[in-house]
Amino acid sequence: MRSGILTLTTDFGPDGPYVASIKGIILGLAPGTHIVDVSHCVPPQDIAHASFLLGQIVESFPQGTVHLAVVDPGVGTDRRLIVVEACEQLFTLPDNGLIGGVLNRFEPAGTWEIRNPRLRRAVVSSTFHGRDILAPVAAHLLRGGDPADVGPRLEGPFLPTMPESVEGQGRVAGEVVFVDSFGNLITNIQRRRLERIDLEVSVDWVIEVLGQRIEGISTTYGNHSPGTLLALIGSSGRLEIAVVNGNAATLLGAVRGTPVAVRPLGGAGT
Amino acid sequence: MRSGILTLTTDFGPDGPYVASIKGIILGLAPGTHIVDVSHCVPPQDIAHASFLLGQIVESFPQGTVHLAVVDPGVGTDRRLIVVEACEQLFTLPDNGLIGGVLNRFEPAGTWEIRNPRLRRAVVSSTFHGRDILAPVAAHLLRGGDPADVGPRLEGPFLPTMPESVEGQGRVAGEVVFVDSFGNLITNIQRRRLERIDLEVSVDWVIEVLGQRIEGISTTYGNHSPGTLLALIGSSGRLEIAVVNGNAATLLGAVRGTPVAVRPLGGAGT
Amino acid sequence: MRSGILTLTTDFGPDGPYVASIKGIILGLAPGTHIVDVSHCVPPQDIAHASFLLGQIVESFPQGTVHLAVVDPGVGTDRRLIVVEACEQLFTLPDNGLIGGVLNRFEPAGTWEIRNPRLRRAVVSSTFHGRDILAPVAAHLLRGGDPADVGPRLEGPFLPTMPESVEGQGRVAGEVVFVDSFGNLITNIQRRRLERIDLEVSVDWVIEVLGQRIEGISTTYGNHSPGTLLALIGSSGRLEIAVVNGNAATLLGAVRGTPVAVRPLGGAGT
Repeated sequence: MRSGILTLTTDFGPDGPYVASIKGIILGLAPGTHIVDVSHCVPPQDIAHASFLLGQIVESFPQGTVHLAVVDPGVGTDRRLIVVEACEQLFTLPDNGLIGGVLNRFEPAGTWEIRNPRLRRAVVSSTFHGRDILAPVAAHLLRGGDPADVGPRLEGPFLPTMPESVEGQGRVAGEVVFVDSFGNLITNIQRRRLERIDLEVSVDWVIEVLGQRIEGISTTYGNHSPGTLLALIGSSGRLEIAVVNGNAATLLGAVRGTPVAVRPLGGAGT
Repeated sequence: MRSGILTLTTDFGPDGPYVASIKGIILGLAPGTHIVDVSHCVPPQDIAHASFLLGQIVESFPQGTVHLAVVDPGVGTDRRLIVVEACEQLFTLPDNGLIGGVLNRFEPAGTWEIRNPRLRRAVVSSTFHGRDILAPVAAHLLRGGDPADVGPRLEGPFLPTMPESVEGQGRVAGEVVFVDSFGNLITNIQRRRLERIDLEVSVDWVIEVLGQRIEGISTTYGNHSPGTLLALIGSSGRLEIAVVNGNAATLLGAVRGTPVAVRPLGGAGT
Repeated sequence: MRSGILTLTTDFGPDGPYVASIKGIILGLAPGTHIVDVSHCVPPQDIAHASFLLGQIVESFPQGTVHLAVVDPGVGTDRRLIVVEACEQLFTLPDNGLIGGVLNRFEPAGTWEIRNPRLRRAVVSSTFHGRDILAPVAAHLLRGGDPADVGPRLEGPFLPTMPESVEGQGRVAGEVVFVDSFGNLITNIQRRRLERIDLEVSVDWVIEVLGQRIEGISTTYGNHSPGTLLALIGSSGRLEIAVVNGNAATLLGAVRGTPVAVRPLGGAGT
């Protein structure tokens, strides 16, 4: 069963004809589809950024949702286009690691290479496969079509792009994987990492980032004064670093890839 | 009766997973909802800005529309989440003054505090109540649910945030309450204020802003040369200051809060 | 027959009450309409920009789609508001050249001036005809209403705004007509122009732009190294100039109107 919902994630920007063209194709082939924009402000060609977004939103959507993502520096080369089933939802995208953020969280239930020439527009441009190939395939899925119709089944995981945090010596070393629009630093340190570490040495934690030292993991922003730098477990179940009513990325000069370490207060590293 | 329409107003920015996550929850719980983005470019934590937007759009929407607004610096503290009925529409938002722009124009017909634990996601994060509490409540209302289901009824007005203009000595003193994307300065001086003032002294008006003096209130932009600074009654029924095909905010250096005064031409103040 | 789809193209920006107000009117009068945002980031009063967008997207939408465009520096003057039928779709907009991008590609099947006072809001502001006149007319069309209901039929083409490229001495002279969000330079040199020129002198082409000389027309971005400046026939069937994984507009300092010439390699101009 399909939910009648399509999400769109691209690096096409807020202006220009590309996003609307894809929507026109979708609504022409699968009338009544409810389209949700995830983001069109993915930095150009930034696969990791888009991949993170997809991984974050998937659990909020119902079973049978179709996701279309186009961040495609290889458009027109022989890179593959694929359909992936995961979390009882379907993803239509280039096979360039975009699906990584989803596969960090969910096992794929199936992957198919898009090859069926009947599921594309009559004329396929060399630069806009989002409109000419991916949109008709997504529409096919939205109408309840079988993903196996798109082409042969593929095996294997497909380039997860998010680096995993690592544990060692009672310490977790990770990094910033996303900077959100508030300047919050979302890391690849998941709650369960912290729960696994032996807590006998200390009942609390120290977070280190760019020479700053944050003691303790807060439960929320709201109980601290504006301007306070703090760490908390965010809505995605990951460690986040934030400034209350401020911008942690600007304050610290942090970007994606900035290292973040967590260790028990009073532990070996102190 | 509900219109099947949900509007969304947030400070989440044009990029990131938050807006789409809320939409996924809504469409999963209330399939077929038509979602309208009011703005996600509210400056972070700027309650007055979002409040103004809500007040401006409400009359354009049909009876039974549900509005969800999330500008929530107090997320995770004990600030209340509420449902307000006004103008035969329903508003789901934090009780932090966001509803003010609507209550400046319409009497509330009822207000309820959101407390019902069955109308929220199974796991509620401490930082994203928009997704975990407000979205399920909005979906309940969109499905035709009774607002009284969400929790106990509250009394009283709820922090209108827009300053009112004041009259005195044949003069109206107000301020800029919103700068729109064209740089037009929208004030809190409503048409009816000007109609109430005694016009016997003068048949016309002088508008004063940041040392500039504008004579007369125009009926529209189009009959003046580009670059002309003028005042008019805008589409919201308020006095606006604009530059024809230009940007009044940039030209004057005006921001929200900039004082604006109106008095009859040749009146006491001249 | 109508598709139940409305597209919206404005210069209202990503923030502010104007876009949502129009959507509220549409959804109140034509419930169930699927609304597609083409762009609200058209530079203020930039008719040519919006006109190009409309021309680009029209072929992706199904028959019976209604398009509403508001870039309207003349709002409140006696400029006309019109409905145009072209490509089996309907366009509702000011008669200021906005329809030009569509009429560059498709013959109009009919044009009507919007005059019917029953197809507008009870109170019409002098500054927001998009909400007060165009939106109710678009809703009328979306409900299957006859375009002839809006007012008297008009004759003639209506100000196409895009300059045409010209041929001469085995050379095509054109210009940049749109800079997309990737910085790609889209020109008014259409594929058929190049196919018409005598190719016996040369099997290949030279493209000249701002002192740069590009040899050959590539089929796509993906087979070149990042940073390569290249020319190709884009998804719109026009010559485009791009930098692989980069921004051609920034690299070259090109803007809309920048001249671009194409001639055969080894031809008269060498």
